[in-house]
Amino acid sequence: MEKRENTAILLLYCPDQQGIITEITRFIADNRGNIVYLDQYVDRHDGVFFMRIEWELEGFTIPRDKINDYIDTLYAKRYGMTYYLYFTDQKPRMALFVSKMSHCLYDLLARYKAGELDCDIPCIVSNHEDLRYVAEQFGIPYYVWSIKKDHSNKREVEEAEMDLMRREGITFIVLARYMQIVTEDMIKAYPNRIINIHHSFLPAFIGAKPYHQAWQRGVKIIGATSHYVTTELDAGPIIEQDVVRITHRDTPETLVLKGRDLEKIVLSRAVKKHIEHKILTYNNRTFIFT
Amino acid sequence: MEKRENTAILLLYCPDQQGIITEITRFIADNRGNIVYLDQYVDRHDGVFFMRIEWELEGFTIPRDKINDYIDTLYAKRYGMTYYLYFTDQKPRMALFVSKMSHCLYDLLARYKAGELDCDIPCIVSNHEDLRYVAEQFGIPYYVWSIKKDHSNKREVEEAEMDLMRREGITFIVLARYMQIVTEDMIKAYPNRIINIHHSFLPAFIGAKPYHQAWQRGVKIIGATSHYVTTELDAGPIIEQDVVRITHRDTPETLVLKGRDLEKIVLSRAVKKHIEHKILTYNNRTFIFT
Amino acid sequence: MEKRENTAILLLYCPDQQGIITEITRFIADNRGNIVYLDQYVDRHDGVFFMRIEWELEGFTIPRDKINDYIDTLYAKRYGMTYYLYFTDQKPRMALFVSKMSHCLYDLLARYKAGELDCDIPCIVSNHEDLRYVAEQFGIPYYVWSIKKDHSNKREVEEAEMDLMRREGITFIVLARYMQIVTEDMIKAYPNRIINIHHSFLPAFIGAKPYHQAWQRGVKIIGATSHYVTTELDAGPIIEQDVVRITHRDTPETLVLKGRDLEKIVLSRAVKKHIEHKILTYNNRTFIFT
Amino acid sequence: MEKRENTAILLLYCPDQQGIITEITRFIADNRGNIVYLDQYVDRHDGVFFMRIEWELEGFTIPRDKINDYIDTLYAKRYGMTYYLYFTDQKPRMALFVSKMSHCLYDLLARYKAGELDCDIPCIVSNHEDLRYVAEQFGIPYYVWSIKKDHSNKREVEEAEMDLMRREGITFIVLARYMQIVTEDMIKAYPNRIINIHHSFLPAFIGAKPYHQAWQRGVKIIGATSHYVTTELDAGPIIEQDVVRITHRDTPETLVLKGRDLEKIVLSRAVKKHIEHKILTYNNRTFIFT
Repeated sequence: MEKRENTAILLLYCPDQQGIITEITRFIADNRGNIVYLDQYVDRHDGVFFMRIEWELEGFTIPRDKINDYIDTLYAKRYGMTYYLYFTDQKPRMALFVSKMSHCLYDLLARYKAGELDCDIPCIVSNHEDLRYVAEQFGIPYYVWSIKKDHSNKREVEEAEMDLMRREGITFIVLARYMQIVTEDMIKAYPNRIINIHHSFLPAFIGAKPYHQAWQRGVKIIGATSHYVTTELDAGPIIEQDVVRITHRDTPETLVLKGRDLEKIVLSRAVKKHIEHKILTYNNRTFIFT
Repeated sequence: MEKRENTAILLLYCPDQQGIITEITRFIADNRGNIVYLDQYVDRHDGVFFMRIEWELEGFTIPRDKINDYIDTLYAKRYGMTYYLYFTDQKPRMALFVSKMSHCLYDLLARYKAGELDCDIPCIVSNHEDLRYVAEQFGIPYYVWSIKKDHSNKREVEEAEMDLMRREGITFIVLARYMQIVTEDMIKAYPNRIINIHHSFLPAFIGAKPYHQAWQRGVKIIGATSHYVTTELDAGPIIEQDVVRITHRDTPETLVLKGRDLEKIVLSRAVKKHIEHKILTYNNRTFIFT
Repeated sequence: MEKRENTAILLLYCPDQQGIITEITRFIADNRGNIVYLDQYVDRHDGVFFMRIEWELEGFTIPRDKINDYIDTLYAKRYGMTYYLYFTDQKPRMALFVSKMSHCLYDLLARYKAGELDCDIPCIVSNHEDLRYVAEQFGIPYYVWSIKKDHSNKREVEEAEMDLMRREGITFIVLARYMQIVTEDMIKAYPNRIINIHHSFLPAFIGAKPYHQAWQRGVKIIGATSHYVTTELDAGPIIEQDVVRITHRDTPETLVLKGRDLEKIVLSRAVKKHIEHKILTYNNRTFIFT
Repeated sequence: MEKRENTAILLLYCPDQQGIITEITRFIADNRGNIVYLDQYVDRHDGVFFMRIEWELEGFTIPRDKINDYIDTLYAKRYGMTYYLYFTDQKPRMALFVSKMSHCLYDLLARYKAGELDCDIPCIVSNHEDLRYVAEQFGIPYYVWSIKKDHSNKREVEEAEMDLMRREGITFIVLARYMQIVTEDMIKAYPNRIINIHHSFLPAFIGAKPYHQAWQRGVKIIGATSHYVTTELDAGPIIEQDVVRITHRDTPETLVLKGRDLEKIVLSRAVKKHIEHKILTYNNRTFIFT
């Protein structure tokens, strides 16, 4: 995790064609950019080319505010590319949405405090007061908008939340056991930028009380899944999963406890990959660079 | 795996009541049986007591052909027990059902040959000729009954198979990637005695082509599941599961290959546990003793 | 994790002999104790019998302050038992020893705060001021005694620490990346009651900088190990281990980060088992009940 | 594992320098080679660049018997490259060395027979007659040279073996639990081309009886390690490792059984990676392409 200030990261995909790697690497090399990372992958099934390339901006002859134009003009149209350009000196800004359970929140904040997450966390949002004390322990503003049982004020609440997101320049949202369904408007505003943690090994046990479902079914392994939120419940692109072995001695209650440890680690891995701009999403599947 | 000839194994469950452990252990001790294994578990959720106890028959004062009577009279009725009594000098007899893929078959036969499986394998049954050469390599009779595409002869085939099972004194059946649905008659004849290997992490991806389903969904981990066959497809009590991590670089084809290694190990673990009489089934869940 | 107040837990080992299980269960049943947990194991290699038994004190006819006497008189001498008796309404009291890294400390305190650890944490001890802010976030007294580079004041420091342990009625100590070697006096005062987390898969990579050693050796998997501290460095009875897969792309720095997640989970699992009185130690090996 | 006939694979490493990727990809593209795989990695710690690139030979304008010359002249000297060139239509030829245990041998032969290993296996070599029946089951010539207890004929035996290797055009050797130490002469003849399976999680438990060592130490996880053989015992570059969780209930005997499953899978994964030319070795560490 050596600190590299001043690099540009280009994530892209396009129909597979000959010569793309050469073209892109030549573009960077010819303009005196030093490539510090390159990984690519061809999905032969769908005929799609995926790439992540990172280069040092120091000495790069194209000014950083022109790079996007160059890529767009020289390559994007020609190759039919979808691409994303990031600069590592611009920190992602994360909003944390929580409800009543503290484990994922504590885990992310402890990592943040220890310097493991290279982002800003300007706000924590909740529909309950329960975790305000955690936010206060870490000195992060905590906003509560209660959603009524009949959801009658849901739109209003989300508008207030979206307003906060805009004011704080939030670039991505993490639902750290938020327990509420996010509406389509917010999902559209943050496409592939809302990360959820689901407490099962998806696609098994979609929806409510997955640990109880797992216990009922008598599985021997339970899991947790982090994914980008889409409009279909628990069906968005999977970023990370992990599992732990259980036995018949486990009860729904011990599954909940064991699952918490999975949720923390799976969510934090997904958040890290997102912050490092290492995830591409295509056809509801993620391509995760190492 | 020290060899212990001459032990009796009692597997039982009943409504949880005080004093059962004491009663059972006293029964064995008072009759000069040396207990070599005891494990028990109370499922507090359902209020059920599960136990596996094993004792040496040498010196045990009750003749082996009377033990069943004693247990029945003294305990089974009184405590509402469901119980199973086994003697380790009576080897389980396994019938292997296969189709076209060799990996599980080879794996089980190699273990059998190396002395890892304490059972007899008097026959291999298939609906195809493809794996006859494997059976011949190991000198085990191979029976083929082709099932017609329209399944019009399915009943007839199964009657022939059941006849073979009876003739060979088969105590349990292993579907080593058999790829056919077993009918209710056979399931009733072998309740919790037909072990299947399903090539997914159940209950995800039930039914056909689970690796393709998994690839399509973009999961990051795949699994395999061995379970007892019940009349509901892929829904019987799970005996064992295992998983392996995959990445976006995997194709449906590489998933098939990685999955094979899971299938072999998961199936063989389930078969071993069954042979060692370490599985109790209750409410569609298995209780597996160590 | 249902709460059971008022139970007694007996942990014991002794030379394997016939009838012990029956004797012990009869003792409890005859005195109207309801057994809620029983697990036993015979190590045939060494001929040793291990047992953990737990029963409800409500209705038990022997007064709790006499139970120890009864066990001692009736069984301990006769069977050559080593045994430990606990009551679940007496909470273990943990002292946390830390140095400069916050991850294990945060993890344990977040669990404690969430009610996952059924113990008291009256104090945190360190040789550095660095983590005082964490202790303050959680409102736990933080004591610093600096150990000089030449260790000239080590004895003095440990005496002050031991004094604190006594004052606070500490029953066990957790070295949460303490980075100091504990002296023999403290180990003797807390035999099998000091839990350390070592950041390698022991016995590989004993001593300093294990992640660098692992990287140098080119292993494909790294691990973490929690163990009771004995006078031989990193050689005490292992309580728990876990591992994570790495690749050639990992650097010593990323190993440190990945390892942190292991350390947290491995240490917290060990601490939980200790708090629940589920660990017996014999011949430098642990026997861990489920 | 789609079949791609007619591709060339170039594996290389050299001091990290700007522009290498561009140069190599340009060389292939300019000569009308279609790149079907590219992966590279920079080890910043040692400043070394690693690459694996694969391209279709059909349409490639440089004749295949000249490719080596071109690479040598154009790049190898200039960049200080160590490189290896393979053609996928030239199958690797594996010699299997075995002793008395059948599990790894069966596993590899079953995979070979099922088409999982894209290589030839012209011979099996042993110092014992024990496994001749397995070789015969699969119709592969089995050669026995007994090594005397005093090793007095070891040189003579190895000369006979080396002679066989040459006659059969063996490109790599797999020690499938061979249990003999290979001499320096053979190692020199097959540098990074002799794959061993060691039945422990190296570097823990080097040498004899690792499962007994593991049991003695009381570890909670055991492992297996495949590595290239070097002159230092069990210290060669690690290719693959895997682990399985154990408990205090395991005995040295059950560890041996559980370990066998690890050995099979770890060895077969290493053999596959070797056959697919996906391993580079540098500084006693392996770089394994995906």
